Amino acid sequence: MNVEKMAFEAKDASRVLAKASTPLKNKALKEMAKALRKRAGKILRANGLELAAVRRTSRSAAFVERMTLTGERVENIARALEQVAKLPDPVGGTTDFAKRPNGLTIRKMRVPLGVVAIIYESRPGVTADAAGLCLKSGNAAILRGGKETVRTNHVIAEALREGLRKAGLPAGSVGFVNDPDRAAVRRLLRLDALIDLVIPRGGPELTTAVRRESMIPVLAHDKGLCHTYVDEKADLAMAVAIALNAKAERPGVCNAMETLLVHEKIAQRFLPAAAKRFAAAGVELRGCPKTRKILPGVKAAAKSDWDTEYLALILAVKVVASLDAALAHIARHGSGLAEAIVTTDANRAARFLREADAGAVYVNASTRFTDGGEFGLGAEMGISTQKLHARGPVGLVGLTCEKYVVNGDGQVRCST
Amino acid sequence: MNVEKMAFEAKDASRVLAKASTPLKNKALKEMAKALRKRAGKILRANGLELAAVRRTSRSAAFVERMTLTGERVENIARALEQVAKLPDPVGGTTDFAKRPNGLTIRKMRVPLGVVAIIYESRPGVTADAAGLCLKSGNAAILRGGKETVRTNHVIAEALREGLRKAGLPAGSVGFVNDPDRAAVRRLLRLDALIDLVIPRGGPELTTAVRRESMIPVLAHDKGLCHTYVDEKADLAMAVAIALNAKAERPGVCNAMETLLVHEKIAQRFLPAAAKRFAAAGVELRGCPKTRKILPGVKAAAKSDWDTEYLALILAVKVVASLDAALAHIARHGSGLAEAIVTTDANRAARFLREADAGAVYVNASTRFTDGGEFGLGAEMGISTQKLHARGPVGLVGLTCEKYVVNGDGQVRCST
Repeated sequence: MNVEKMAFEAKDASRVLAKASTPLKNKALKEMAKALRKRAGKILRANGLELAAVRRTSRSAAFVERMTLTGERVENIARALEQVAKLPDPVGGTTDFAKRPNGLTIRKMRVPLGVVAIIYESRPGVTADAAGLCLKSGNAAILRGGKETVRTNHVIAEALREGLRKAGLPAGSVGFVNDPDRAAVRRLLRLDALIDLVIPRGGPELTTAVRRESMIPVLAHDKGLCHTYVDEKADLAMAVAIALNAKAERPGVCNAMETLLVHEKIAQRFLPAAAKRFAAAGVELRGCPKTRKILPGVKAAAKSDWDTEYLALILAVKVVASLDAALAHIARHGSGLAEAIVTTDANRAARFLREADAGAVYVNASTRFTDGGEFGLGAEMGISTQKLHARGPVGLVGLTCEKYVVNGDGQVRCST
Repeated sequence: MNVEKMAFEAKDASRVLAKASTPLKNKALKEMAKALRKRAGKILRANGLELAAVRRTSRSAAFVERMTLTGERVENIARALEQVAKLPDPVGGTTDFAKRPNGLTIRKMRVPLGVVAIIYESRPGVTADAAGLCLKSGNAAILRGGKETVRTNHVIAEALREGLRKAGLPAGSVGFVNDPDRAAVRRLLRLDALIDLVIPRGGPELTTAVRRESMIPVLAHDKGLCHTYVDEKADLAMAVAIALNAKAERPGVCNAMETLLVHEKIAQRFLPAAAKRFAAAGVELRGCPKTRKILPGVKAAAKSDWDTEYLALILAVKVVASLDAALAHIARHGSGLAEAIVTTDANRAARFLREADAGAVYVNASTRFTDGGEFGLGAEMGISTQKLHARGPVGLVGLTCEKYVVNGDGQVRCST
């Protein structure tokens, strides 16, 4: 099916989903889980063939790992759909907005966005996750995964569509783009009359390509260049623990710290203590000149280090003269995902929370908490690094919008 | 100044504006108004020269009218800035979001977007309006108006920047692109690292061009194809009054009705009564076959009529078999700006409010109320027809976003 036809079907389906009841959507999610379990063997066979093909290429081990399914992983994917069924329905609630002098009553009503396209890399788990979140929030989904897993995804999408049909919802609620040609994506990104939102899930290259080509509004997660600022008034032990966690607990993810900023008045005490712990965790440090005066063994940071998302056990370290200097550095180099301050000074904490510009800003905690699960959203479509519509972890509410609903009793507008 | 340098200055200024107090922003707005009044003569001279130049071209009278300033209009522009100073500051408030089992307290804080670019046609009033709304909401603005009024806008922008300086705020808070070349806009639309939002204010051609070229998120008003659906259970006199108002009170604006949908069971009574009033108001009707059976004198609607934003005293009329048929027509042809139902049946009203997909949906009132002033927003940047971020009339809150602020006491994330 070509992408235009798929988008028309999705648009029609979205009208049905928008008015579907919560129990009906939940039934579909459970049927989808069932259909996935039923097809587990077929999914694993398709995945096995695709893994064999990729192993003959120069793709990295991490890439292969991300696209690999096992029986346990398929079961987890099915369970995740059942979890989404348990989450509260974000759609339909209204809030009062205004009662106007002419008697009009204005409220806001939360409604689905309509049709959401998700463009992602070769991670077959995303196929079911994204479809489940869209369905629960009343949106139709159009899915386009990486070409290496197109057969695996195809089988998964078949299962999802069977689940929809069993619940009596249109199969067009979940469209899957089989066409591995990039031209199909380019055509998809022009369909702004049919598709309401496109979410690229992947690295900065994917996001940039989608932003460049899309006529449809984009919800982008581009990169995570997170800072932790250890203030002059920090609790030393807490600062060391937070910095270590932010860098080393899971360095390959977007909410890990990439640059550590240290106030010059605490650097002399903090840096040697932290360096010891970083060394023990296998973290390579790259320091500014002031850092290297205190820690002479540390390699010099190049200018590019301040803009590098290492996603590895490497950390750039800079000594700064003030909170203002730290905020200026963050404004220039941060990616808007998460920023943290460690301090016991309430005024500095408040300034940092207000002025550091990111989806999530922290006082005395690790940036690693920037995650839908940790925020209590129950599930996560991604982490937005843009400011429009949704910032930070995006859950079900992030896939909805509010419209104005106005009740009158015959009001007409007078000429002015 | 080239657009890149201007965007860097705006980004720096946005950090100052984000923490500026409400009184300081209000002082700047009042100083801007003063500076505009002081330069009224200079503004009118520049405008006079540009009007003379445009009158030698084939531009329409309406175009010339929109770009014309008078002493009174300049005074109104200044007063509008003083009005914005009186509006509540949308920035800084927090709402509780979650208290997590690990002790983290998560709130949401309303903050400015950062840097907002506005691309508009030759309407010099927009220059001050847009800058004032951005300033009050803590955003830096980059303005790019139509080339026919670049000199007038330049003088207005000078006044705005003088006002900023007098209040002690950076002049870079308002950047004005003097370069009339379209290449400057194209370069501007690539600066997604510096600019957070672009708002095209103008017709569908401008919006489409901006959507096509922009890497920056777009808040678009594309067109207003509004319907009024007269239900079987409508109050007849109310339906006639609302339909007449929605079409004829001011036909040239986006919230005017373009297509009237009439339930077949009321058509026989409603259409003749309405047709009489439409005729008296000089409205030309274009009807579907069923409409023309009841009103034989009416011209036949072509297929394209259902998708035409007339912005004139012309109305397409269609008789439909049911509420569902009306909703299906709206889903296919509506532009998502405003839709209305006239009915005394509460269930049908509720269904329409939920299912008609537009920024504003009405029961028993005219779509003409879709306006920031009428909604009590105090001022309006535009009317969004997209679903992302803000729908319907966009006021000061629509120029802000919410970030997560998280308070901890040393929490680190455990490996899972």
